[in-house]
This record gives sequence, C-alpha cells and structure tokens, in this order.
Amino acid sequence: MIGISIGDANGVGPEILLRTYKEGNMAGDFIAVGDYSVLDFCNKKMQLDIPLNKIKELVEFRKDCLNVYDLDILNEDEITIGRISERVGYAALHYVEVGTQLALSGVTSALVTLPVNKEAIRLTDHNFSGHTGYIAALCKTIKYTMMLVSTRLIVSHVSTHVSQLDAIKNVKQERILDVIRLTDTALKKLNKNSKIAVAGLNPHAGENNAFGIEDSIEILPAVEKGKAEGILVSGPIPADTVFYQAIKGKYDAVVCMYHDQGHIAIKLLDFESAVNVTLGLPIVRTSVDHGTAYDIAYKGIASTSSLINAYNLAKKLM
Amino acid sequence: MIGISIGDANGVGPEILLRTYKEGNMAGDFIAVGDYSVLDFCNKKMQLDIPLNKIKELVEFRKDCLNVYDLDILNEDEITIGRISERVGYAALHYVEVGTQLALSGVTSALVTLPVNKEAIRLTDHNFSGHTGYIAALCKTIKYTMMLVSTRLIVSHVSTHVSQLDAIKNVKQERILDVIRLTDTALKKLNKNSKIAVAGLNPHAGENNAFGIEDSIEILPAVEKGKAEGILVSGPIPADTVFYQAIKGKYDAVVCMYHDQGHIAIKLLDFESAVNVTLGLPIVRTSVDHGTAYDIAYKGIASTSSLINAYNLAKKLM
Repeated sequence: MIGISIGDANGVGPEILLRTYKEGNMAGDFIAVGDYSVLDFCNKKMQLDIPLNKIKELVEFRKDCLNVYDLDILNEDEITIGRISERVGYAALHYVEVGTQLALSGVTSALVTLPVNKEAIRLTDHNFSGHTGYIAALCKTIKYTMMLVSTRLIVSHVSTHVSQLDAIKNVKQERILDVIRLTDTALKKLNKNSKIAVAGLNPHAGENNAFGIEDSIEILPAVEKGKAEGILVSGPIPADTVFYQAIKGKYDAVVCMYHDQGHIAIKLLDFESAVNVTLGLPIVRTSVDHGTAYDIAYKGIASTSSLINAYNLAKKLM
Repeated sequence: MIGISIGDANGVGPEILLRTYKEGNMAGDFIAVGDYSVLDFCNKKMQLDIPLNKIKELVEFRKDCLNVYDLDILNEDEITIGRISERVGYAALHYVEVGTQLALSGVTSALVTLPVNKEAIRLTDHNFSGHTGYIAALCKTIKYTMMLVSTRLIVSHVSTHVSQLDAIKNVKQERILDVIRLTDTALKKLNKNSKIAVAGLNPHAGENNAFGIEDSIEILPAVEKGKAEGILVSGPIPADTVFYQAIKGKYDAVVCMYHDQGHIAIKLLDFESAVNVTLGLPIVRTSVDHGTAYDIAYKGIASTSSLINAYNLAKKLM
C-alpha cells in the first residue's frame, strides 16, 4: 500500500493524480492522503468521473475506487486555482505530515509526494526549506540525500536547497562519503550496477589545486575511503564531462556537489519525467520532480510521467 | 587570412589540423602558426602526405599547400607524444603569443587556437591560468568573456577558470551587465536573434532570497539595466530550467554565472563539436573546446568537428 500526498490544491498535484489513475497507470493499491473536498472538486471540474471513496481508516479501502484518506482541512471554496494561499499551503504541509506518519507507522509501505508550494507554506511555517528536509525531520533523520532518477541518468546530491556559498561549505569529506554510501545502497536496491562517479566542485575538478582546493582535500579522500569500503567509486571527475561519461555508460550514478550541478544535467536530459527519491530515511519516499505549475493547473495539460515514474519507483524500493 | 596556433605538440592539435585540411574541410586561406618541424613530423608519422610550405612572411604563402608560419622552436626529437613536456609547453605558449600578435597587427584577421596543456605551460609560466586570459592580457583587454557555441545552445560566462568560491565573488552587477552586453553584440554579429537569458546563481535563482541573495541584489539589477539599454534580456532564471528553455527556442543564449553552469549544459548536448569564442577582444579569436587528449594523440581518432566549427565561426566573425 502506497500513500500519495496530493500536494498544493491550487497547483497541478490533484489533477495529475486523478488523470494518472483515470489513464490506468497506477497498478497496485494506494491511498491519496489529503482533502476529499479537493479531489472531489477537481474530479468534477475536470469531468473525470472517477469513483472516489472517502476513508478514515484502511479497513474502508475499496478496490474499485480511488481511495482518499481524508484529512478534512479545506472546504471546496478555499481552493483558489493558480494562486498562493496560506490555508492551502497549510493543508498541503499537513498532508505530507500525515503521509509520513502513515509510512513510519507501517500503515503504508511508501510515501509518494505531489508538489507543495514553498511560498504558500512559508506563510505559516517561515522556516520551511522544502519537502525533503521536512520529511527527514519528521523521521528524525540527519543523514539523507536527494537522488534524481531518470531513464538516462541518476544523480545524488551533497547539498540541495542552500545558497551556493553554503553549498561550498557543505563539501566536506564525511558528508560526501555518506552520500556515496547512500547512493551505493540505493543502486543495489534498484538492481542496478553501481559504478559511482563523484563530480568535482571546482572547474576541471580544481585542476591540481589551481582553482580551489576542495577537490583535493575533501572529495578525493572521501572517494578513497569509499573505495576502501569496497564501493566502485571514482572521482573527483570534472563536472563538465562526468555526466556525458555517465550517459555513455561509464557510470551508473553521479554524486553531485550542489543542487544545480545534478539538476542542470538531469533536467536537460529528461525535463518532465525525472523522479526525486529521498535516500537515508527509515521510509521509502519518492516524489515528482516538478513544482505546482500554477500557470497550467486544472487545465489537463500537465504531464503525468513524473508521477507514473515516482509511483513505480516507490514500488521497486518498497 | 586566419592564423591557427597548432597547440601542444604532444597532443591532438597538430593531427587535427592536418586531418581537417586533408579532408578538405578548411575553405579559404589560413596559416598554421607553430613549428614546421612538428607538423612535418606529424604529417610523416600519420602518412598524410600533405604538401607543407614553410614560411617566414606572408608573401611566401602558396595556395596549393598547407602554409606553416614557422617559429623554429622545437626539434622533432623533442616531441614526446602523450607526455607533459616543459619545452613543448613553452613552445605551445609561444605559438599563441605570435598568433595573437599577427592578429593584433592585422597580418591575420582572426586567430583559431588548438589545445595547449596548462600543466606543461605551468612548468615555465607558473601563473598561467589558461589560453583565454593569456590572449586577453596580450590584447590588454580587461572586459572579455568566454562564449561556447554549439548547434543547439550558446552560453557565455561571468567567470571561468577560478575556484567556485571566487566564482561567487565574481557575481557582481557590473560584470554581469558587461557579459550581457558582450553576448548581445556577438549574437548580432552572428546574425542570430538575441533573446538572452541570465541564469541564476543559487538553487531556484535564490527562491526569493531563501537560498542566497546574489540573484536579487546582483543579477536582477544587471538584467534591469540591460533591458533599459534595449537588450532583450530576462533573468535571473533558475539554472536547472534555463537551458531546457533555451534549446526549446525561448532564448538564443544563456549568460552563466560560473564555468560549470554553462559547460555542464553544452558538453552534455554537444560533447565534441562546441566552439569556444572569446568576446570583447580587439581580435577575433575562436578555439576548439577540447583539451590535448594525450591518450589518443597521433592515433587518427580525435574528432575534427570542433576545429571545423571553430574555423567556420571565425570566418563569420571576421
């Protein structure tokens, strides 16, 4: 059983969930975690005619419906399509909280998340830095990383939603080694080969300390320690060649030093269908790798491929 | 008349030049700037049978030969294929120096450079940071930038061969505006549309100052000033989406905040055939966008496409 948090009600989350279900692309059991009122509104507005089943406990689950674990927060008239809303942001965060608790308590075996809007959430939770950090905190997990999986490339990150300056400060031996280990474990779980490349931080991986020393003093020792543990890891490899080598088959995943390093590569190769996985949590959590896309919400044009991939990947990792 | 510096004699430069010429891919007049001995050695070793003409002045130029403006530095027995050499590095730098002077004095109308090996050059010139900076210094130019041109994407850079930490320090309003202007001028010279995107520095372009403030306080004002000058420029746009939008036709070039931002994107799209152009110099200078590739030197397998493109782009810019 997978739990799917429905995301910000003003964005593309609810519609993507309903359309993916309608198209028959969600094999196996799942429950939507969110407001029944939101999915009911979306179902009607988009004339999808999906049988919805409001449940409060798992015993009420029915095979012939889309089951909604109803949190009863929003009324239909609180939905303001395509607009930032404090109430909707608050509700979206609560869906994630409950979705995480259901997974932690074993009611569900995995959590798939649809997009929240950070600005909306920050209207009530000023320190909210993102979905992933929030879930990790609920799970009391410190060592985790964001991995992005697409058909052509897999990347994981030493840091994500921090300033570029803080990203450099995070390039530390111990953290890099943790991400190498998490990446290796995940690749094995996915039954993939696990030749891992570690990207350099500085141009040309520092070119023998000519441009920055982090590649020599932080990244290289982490790679050496990973090797000593038996992990098939190489690096630091200049960031402008490592992704090309990976898609040519030389590496199965690339450990990236900062958010944009991995994201530039994967979004250029596979803009719509990449999946975001959080490694290191006590629960399985995958997510679509796109935002709320307010401009196209409830229009029936948002791509469902990332949700399909996130859902299927969660099943593999369960 | 184009001058082509032949690059590090132990790398792929000499062979790429000879093979490109042999394949009939260099229409118009050019002179090779380097050692006759090196090209003669390469010609024989690779059995290319190209008629070479050693010249000391342009009046000796012959249409039916590959003309070599001979600097007479290296002997044939100083070539150590695939190995770093102080003498060969010294010679390679001298070819660039003379190639630049020929262009500055108007003997040639453009300079195309083949790869040098920085480590080899640093054995005599400890402060050598790269081809581009060296040429700019010879031209007494302070405001210049590296632009990479491929069939699918054009990128220019606020900084290149500096540490990632220094790259952040270089993200300053005035510098960004200079690069926007240089990019706009180049696009117009190439008869391209000139819708320019400026990439953000921080993840999600800082997400309203949640992750770093440079996007707001340095990049945005530069973009506004560019717009006020009539340049079609937008930004800051998150780096993980801007390249995708550019290749979809929304932008004609992307101004990048650091080396790897632009290089990751362009090398992933077009690994072998991108061309490096230095904007802002009093001379036209293009370069292949690859290194000396010692491991495949003199084997006849190095791709000639970057030289062909660099040569043709120089002709357009002359």
